[in-house]
Amino acid sequence: MSFYPPRRTLMGPGPSDVNPRITNAMARPTIGHLDPVFIELMEELKGLLQYAFQTKNALTLPVSAPGSAGMETCFVNLMEPGDKAIICQNGVFGGRMKENVTRLGGEAVMVQDDWGSAIDLDKVREAIAVHPDAKVLAFVHAETSTGVRSDAEALCRLASEAGMLSIMDTVTGLGGIEVAIDQWGADAVYSGSQKCLSCTPGLSPLTISDRAAEVIRNRSHPVQSWFLDLNLVMGYWGNGDGKRAYHHTAPINALYGLHEALTILKEEGLEASFARHRLNHEALKAGLEAIGLSLVVKEEDRLPQLNLVSVPEGVDEAAVRSTLLNDYHLEIGAGLGALAGKVWRIGLMGYASNPTNVRLCLSALQHALAAQGLEVNGAVRAADAVYAAAGQ
Amino acid sequence: MSFYPPRRTLMGPGPSDVNPRITNAMARPTIGHLDPVFIELMEELKGLLQYAFQTKNALTLPVSAPGSAGMETCFVNLMEPGDKAIICQNGVFGGRMKENVTRLGGEAVMVQDDWGSAIDLDKVREAIAVHPDAKVLAFVHAETSTGVRSDAEALCRLASEAGMLSIMDTVTGLGGIEVAIDQWGADAVYSGSQKCLSCTPGLSPLTISDRAAEVIRNRSHPVQSWFLDLNLVMGYWGNGDGKRAYHHTAPINALYGLHEALTILKEEGLEASFARHRLNHEALKAGLEAIGLSLVVKEEDRLPQLNLVSVPEGVDEAAVRSTLLNDYHLEIGAGLGALAGKVWRIGLMGYASNPTNVRLCLSALQHALAAQGLEVNGAVRAADAVYAAAGQ
Repeated sequence: MSFYPPRRTLMGPGPSDVNPRITNAMARPTIGHLDPVFIELMEELKGLLQYAFQTKNALTLPVSAPGSAGMETCFVNLMEPGDKAIICQNGVFGGRMKENVTRLGGEAVMVQDDWGSAIDLDKVREAIAVHPDAKVLAFVHAETSTGVRSDAEALCRLASEAGMLSIMDTVTGLGGIEVAIDQWGADAVYSGSQKCLSCTPGLSPLTISDRAAEVIRNRSHPVQSWFLDLNLVMGYWGNGDGKRAYHHTAPINALYGLHEALTILKEEGLEASFARHRLNHEALKAGLEAIGLSLVVKEEDRLPQLNLVSVPEGVDEAAVRSTLLNDYHLEIGAGLGALAGKVWRIGLMGYASNPTNVRLCLSALQHALAAQGLEVNGAVRAADAVYAAAGQ
Repeated sequence: MSFYPPRRTLMGPGPSDVNPRITNAMARPTIGHLDPVFIELMEELKGLLQYAFQTKNALTLPVSAPGSAGMETCFVNLMEPGDKAIICQNGVFGGRMKENVTRLGGEAVMVQDDWGSAIDLDKVREAIAVHPDAKVLAFVHAETSTGVRSDAEALCRLASEAGMLSIMDTVTGLGGIEVAIDQWGADAVYSGSQKCLSCTPGLSPLTISDRAAEVIRNRSHPVQSWFLDLNLVMGYWGNGDGKRAYHHTAPINALYGLHEALTILKEEGLEASFARHRLNHEALKAGLEAIGLSLVVKEEDRLPQLNLVSVPEGVDEAAVRSTLLNDYHLEIGAGLGALAGKVWRIGLMGYASNPTNVRLCLSALQHALAAQGLEVNGAVRAADAVYAAAGQ
């Protein structure tokens, strides 16, 4: 039997609501991965990704697999067995970076911060002083597990001043907050399609600086993964020599979707998208605070697109999420790791970052809390006041 | 600007024409990768894949990336550094298997056959006799680069009799010809979504025997790829313990598409699908032969879904393909490697395996050959005679 999913509102940590323009684009006829028309699409995609990443990097393309494969692409291409990486961990994804490094035969030096806090630059400076021989400094710009933004510009600068290559995870960042690859001097950066780009999951936008690309071209060992070897992937996405060598069959229709998602982002403009994410975050925050719910992350470190909300004393957080899903078809996220059971993660990403979703989420939360005996109201009014003050 | 692809007829080595039911399914609303409704879809998908593979293997799932990632999943999970594999090569993809083995620190013993020939079982027996310590015997069931079918059942038996694990590439086989995993005793098998399943590219159906799964659970080294580590992937797709641990964000909408593709296959039935592929192949062959074009592969080794056709003396094969693409929006494939310039690869895969496509291809070929001064006709009449004899 054919599968007909319910229509959900996706306000968790991703996937986010997908713009129907994108699913419509994905449903267009499949063409061949070496078709001249498809090659044109690939060139356009590269340009659109360069726009989103604010970069001129020639090696900018979508990895044909989800964000975790984008992460692995960066590590296995930049590092060789025996290489050392300093990894900043303040959530789930720093831990995954460590796994990547040890599995390729590298050494991982961990810099730990509390989950829910930004990366402490002083600790990173210390680690660099103790391990000046590290090849890579890796960090998460926008932690999907905690809703924390770290100072990517400063971290990239620390890396380049120390002669290290930076690897940056901005899976949840791209399109929602400033990501300025060239200005920051980031070396290897990956993102995801299903967060602030509001595309379906399954692709990982990637950009590699010229100096990192040079390192990849001059490796002494082949990249351990054939599928993720950028020396081979470059041959298909274009070396600048005008030739295309078949590497793997590109996920054609998924790329139609990403092309449309990036087209939508460019139509809106990066600054306008960032401002929209900020405004909807402010409105959600006002609504939450009006009913006594507080945000966990310090104000200056908050991601507007992903809000970590404290579960009030005595409230069964899983029951609240079930009520939202069953009664409102609304998905929000649970906490992970040390934060499990203590927080919700409410996403306002891409197409999902809009006043209707903010009002829906606040109304539904009031309903779900009331079902647990916590009578609160006034959330939507507080959010609306923020929109009114912004002239909306 | 939004991208509007032309409507092509895809009769190359894949992707093949996608059934509109599948692109419609992909355009349905995205839901979360941990949504209870999505978990049900995953269970259904497992059952549908077990049907297609004719297996009861519990570890049966789609890898969230194209067929090359499916290949890599098999090698990096079954093999450890220092392990030896016997690899049969009779086309492009055996060579890629070798790359996989050497990149994981294994040793590859190659058994070479001519491109366009099936794997010689005697050579494999010899290699097994010389290398009884090999852990893996790997081969391509349906060579996408040449249109050759090898005797998968016999190869799997040679492997299990020698106490080796078999790794089988049936990217182009699944859904088009018999693939009987349990009956053959195959251990690790991967396919692709975009061939005889007629889905969009980007997913790799995979099935692993219980004994191979046991080998994976008891490895001494962690799998070198975090993304492709089946020990972790199993935790998300279900260990049988009823729990699901987040590993990576599944490509939700692509999985809707694969679910629909497999539903279509099950509605038709495996035997009916195989018979349809055979009949359309016979009709195409009759048409080609009527205009003096011959098939390269020996009759008993031919894949009905992928036909390797000799380019006649004096004909510019690339010009013919351009004429087909420009005048008929019809894509056929070129030769690879040693066969480049000498052959065309004409696919009749999945939804594309139908009499309309056979007639279109034959008519278009006549037109393109005439443009090069080779006046031929009667191809469609010869194909129609085959259909008439079959009562169609």
